[in-house]
Amino acid sequence: MFIIGELINGMYKDIGQAIKEKNKAIIQKCALDQIKAGADALDVNCGPASRQPVSDIQWLVQAIQEVTDKPLALDSSKPQVIESGLQVIKNKAIINSTTADPEKLGVLVPLAKIYNAKLIGLTISTKGIPQNKDQRLELAVTIVASCSEQGFPVEDLYLDPIVLPVNVAQAQMKDILETIYEFKVISEPSPKSIVGLSNVSQGTCVRSLVNRTFLTMAIVSGLDAAILDPTDKDLLDAAITAELILNKQIYCDSYLEAYRRK
Amino acid sequence: MFIIGELINGMYKDIGQAIKEKNKAIIQKCALDQIKAGADALDVNCGPASRQPVSDIQWLVQAIQEVTDKPLALDSSKPQVIESGLQVIKNKAIINSTTADPEKLGVLVPLAKIYNAKLIGLTISTKGIPQNKDQRLELAVTIVASCSEQGFPVEDLYLDPIVLPVNVAQAQMKDILETIYEFKVISEPSPKSIVGLSNVSQGTCVRSLVNRTFLTMAIVSGLDAAILDPTDKDLLDAAITAELILNKQIYCDSYLEAYRRK
Repeated sequence: MFIIGELINGMYKDIGQAIKEKNKAIIQKCALDQIKAGADALDVNCGPASRQPVSDIQWLVQAIQEVTDKPLALDSSKPQVIESGLQVIKNKAIINSTTADPEKLGVLVPLAKIYNAKLIGLTISTKGIPQNKDQRLELAVTIVASCSEQGFPVEDLYLDPIVLPVNVAQAQMKDILETIYEFKVISEPSPKSIVGLSNVSQGTCVRSLVNRTFLTMAIVSGLDAAILDPTDKDLLDAAITAELILNKQIYCDSYLEAYRRK
Repeated sequence: MFIIGELINGMYKDIGQAIKEKNKAIIQKCALDQIKAGADALDVNCGPASRQPVSDIQWLVQAIQEVTDKPLALDSSKPQVIESGLQVIKNKAIINSTTADPEKLGVLVPLAKIYNAKLIGLTISTKGIPQNKDQRLELAVTIVASCSEQGFPVEDLYLDPIVLPVNVAQAQMKDILETIYEFKVISEPSPKSIVGLSNVSQGTCVRSLVNRTFLTMAIVSGLDAAILDPTDKDLLDAAITAELILNKQIYCDSYLEAYRRK
């Protein structure tokens, strides 16, 4: 599975403070800690408190690129912030994210093409978050169709079914898992699937347990990628073991360590 | 999920010794510990060292029945040992197990009918353990057909796909998970599915992790029941959380405790 570390986000107090004070060391340590723990890429989000996200994201990208060449997921709901990050990125880029809104697709898909970036597509529209599998798949088809029409390779598209907290949307969880499975049959070649994991456990008392159980279930449903906290060892252990069981990692007695050294 | 506690088995040293010395207190404590941890039923196996399994299983059943009325799974490859246990059982009975061998089906299905017992059917034949999904499903169909012909209700049949250790049969794991899913479409009403869980982690260095990850994956594949160690708290927590995510348990902040008090 392709793991995107979620910790470089201004909503976390230490990161928000580091962005404000332009303290590169904090950001770079957070980047390296996540990579050491097993992250394949890093999410980069200025956070809601940033007053200059257009310049802050450039500063973040440049700080991180000094210590790693892993792909960076530029995370903002504002296309101009994403474009600003793309202007200074040297690492591989992931755009996080577009929705199924035609206006966003019209801006972000061309940007993804110009910068040779992968693209995360949320199955959400201006009408809000879908409430069942059919609505999710309908929005997924809209995103896939727009990518195809605009000449963006669908295999570089990561569809996100929008994971809701289990304590408020328990009846939708099975639908969300099935949606992940069905993303694969939307087109040939298939789009990939991704989840922003931590939302599933929002407000619960056993967050790590809920996160790793849902992730394991999503992996057997065909999940390709996740945005998560790679420093949660139990979470990564579960993901690595699920992939082992699906024969995607080769067994050896020290398979957990071998994965992290990859 | 229907959880059958696996710990009353003569292959474990303390249980083997207790059977030899007819020490009821050890057996009864093991029964109650498993029930307290969340077991819905208890497996009863004299173990390979028992010289008088036909009388030992009667002693075990009687000892356990003094402290609980939970269902008991009479576990032996010898039909006469199972029949002996059935003769003294007052609790609900589960026969563990028949294979797809016509001789065994000819003895054990009638016994299950006479004693109103549920029946575990292993997808294994005199030719040995199947090596792929088609072979597993073929044997499952043989078992289901025999039950139907003999007038045994298929919804009381638990099919076991035979879980192999991940370190020796890694390429078969995905097949085994898919087999669990496909058991459901063999007949209407559907047979149920069960796994003897601990085999999956045999010989690995992280047994509990492999057990709970595989169990979580099997639950999302439709697993109905498992024979496992219910006193492994992390394992039960994973199973309960997987069922929560599938909306089979109602969410509350203390859902883990609520499940165990059920």
